[in-house]
Amino acid sequence: MRYNEFTIEGRNAVIEAFRSGKPIDRLFILDGAQEGAIQTIKKEAKKHDTTIKFVTKERLDQISETGKHQGVIAYAAAYEYAQVADILERARQKNEPPFLFLLDNIEDPHNLGAIIRTANLAGAHGVIIPKNRAVGLTATVAKASAGAINYTPVAKVTNLSKTIEELKKEGIWFVCADMDGTSMYHLNLRGAIGLVLGSEGEGVSRLVKEKCDFTAMIPMKGDIDSLNASVAAGILAFEIVRQNHFC
Amino acid sequence: MRYNEFTIEGRNAVIEAFRSGKPIDRLFILDGAQEGAIQTIKKEAKKHDTTIKFVTKERLDQISETGKHQGVIAYAAAYEYAQVADILERARQKNEPPFLFLLDNIEDPHNLGAIIRTANLAGAHGVIIPKNRAVGLTATVAKASAGAINYTPVAKVTNLSKTIEELKKEGIWFVCADMDGTSMYHLNLRGAIGLVLGSEGEGVSRLVKEKCDFTAMIPMKGDIDSLNASVAAGILAFEIVRQNHFC
Repeated sequence: MRYNEFTIEGRNAVIEAFRSGKPIDRLFILDGAQEGAIQTIKKEAKKHDTTIKFVTKERLDQISETGKHQGVIAYAAAYEYAQVADILERARQKNEPPFLFLLDNIEDPHNLGAIIRTANLAGAHGVIIPKNRAVGLTATVAKASAGAINYTPVAKVTNLSKTIEELKKEGIWFVCADMDGTSMYHLNLRGAIGLVLGSEGEGVSRLVKEKCDFTAMIPMKGDIDSLNASVAAGILAFEIVRQNHFC
Repeated sequence: MRYNEFTIEGRNAVIEAFRSGKPIDRLFILDGAQEGAIQTIKKEAKKHDTTIKFVTKERLDQISETGKHQGVIAYAAAYEYAQVADILERARQKNEPPFLFLLDNIEDPHNLGAIIRTANLAGAHGVIIPKNRAVGLTATVAKASAGAINYTPVAKVTNLSKTIEELKKEGIWFVCADMDGTSMYHLNLRGAIGLVLGSEGEGVSRLVKEKCDFTAMIPMKGDIDSLNASVAAGILAFEIVRQNHFC
């Protein structure tokens, strides 16, 4: 599953990467560039749901490794994505009810990596992230995952709400982490479950939250607002582990 | 409780800082420097249990903000330390059994900050760190703590084992986080408790571990070795919270 992380620079190289089906996580295009090749790249990006950032020439020069970016640089995934079906198949092979992590709004690569690490050690079968906005499987994510990225499949989906709807048909329940939820100790978190986590700042988006079956809150004392996103993920994940295996 | 973080540069300034009782977290001295003033500084550092790092001139130039370090730069604490007695008093005032975090070998400021944050939200009364080797309360720690450092007192002690021994006399039990321990779900973690946590690499040192009443393990599935230190701290802390308040 391991890939080298790489940037792809220059118009033809980026067009070629898209057409060959390489997973492109992020695309940087010179703000204001209007040439035909740039239009083609924008179309390909749209087709592949790749997020485009329009940036200054200075920024491109800074990112560039070759110095020959021609106004466009793509970040290719360091690791290959799995399909949601692969994740479910993994649960089936282990003869376990599916246990999934779904991450909404997690943009920090250290948090993403730490959560993949936790997912692995909690025995989750995979992690699902949305294509839009989410950070990709970069070398930073891989490092923060302490190698878990080599074992725990990560799938990227176009629409997290829709994926939840489809997975509900498979008998999976979805619990959304939210400060306004029910204490996790008072919820039944056993069986096939998807744990839906948001970022520290924004939490889980409204549309995704509405698709969840219940919302779970970590009961907190103290003076500040919230736990670190990956710490909260760990606490919730291990409450699921406890309920399923230790009581 | 808030202080500005600052570096103190130059021989007289550093000697003065020690003599005025400023909490110095780290001291950088030019490797090989033998002058009288440097000897005085070394003696003061020893008296105050401050860790000295001997570094090259290039490193000092790099750290220096003034460019006039004269071979010595001290890092002063950004926040004031509490006393262990203050932490116990805090529990008493709240009429709660003491709940403490003790950190051994935690050198990463992000981990320290994240753990102080978790301690605050788990309702712990304070955090105890050893003087030797531990990272101090720098601005990085403060940021990673999301402000918890302003509420949760942190005490620095010379000898963690000795502090544990003394606190045992107060009726506090000590549980050490360790991969070879008993599953935390099978331990009684109620009442006055000190949670002893080590770093990811080294764990809790042998001498400290031997002083603990029991060792707790987070039961893990998965393919990789260990959780992130601050995630593990969160999971253990909230198992203590659960046992004390939710069952």
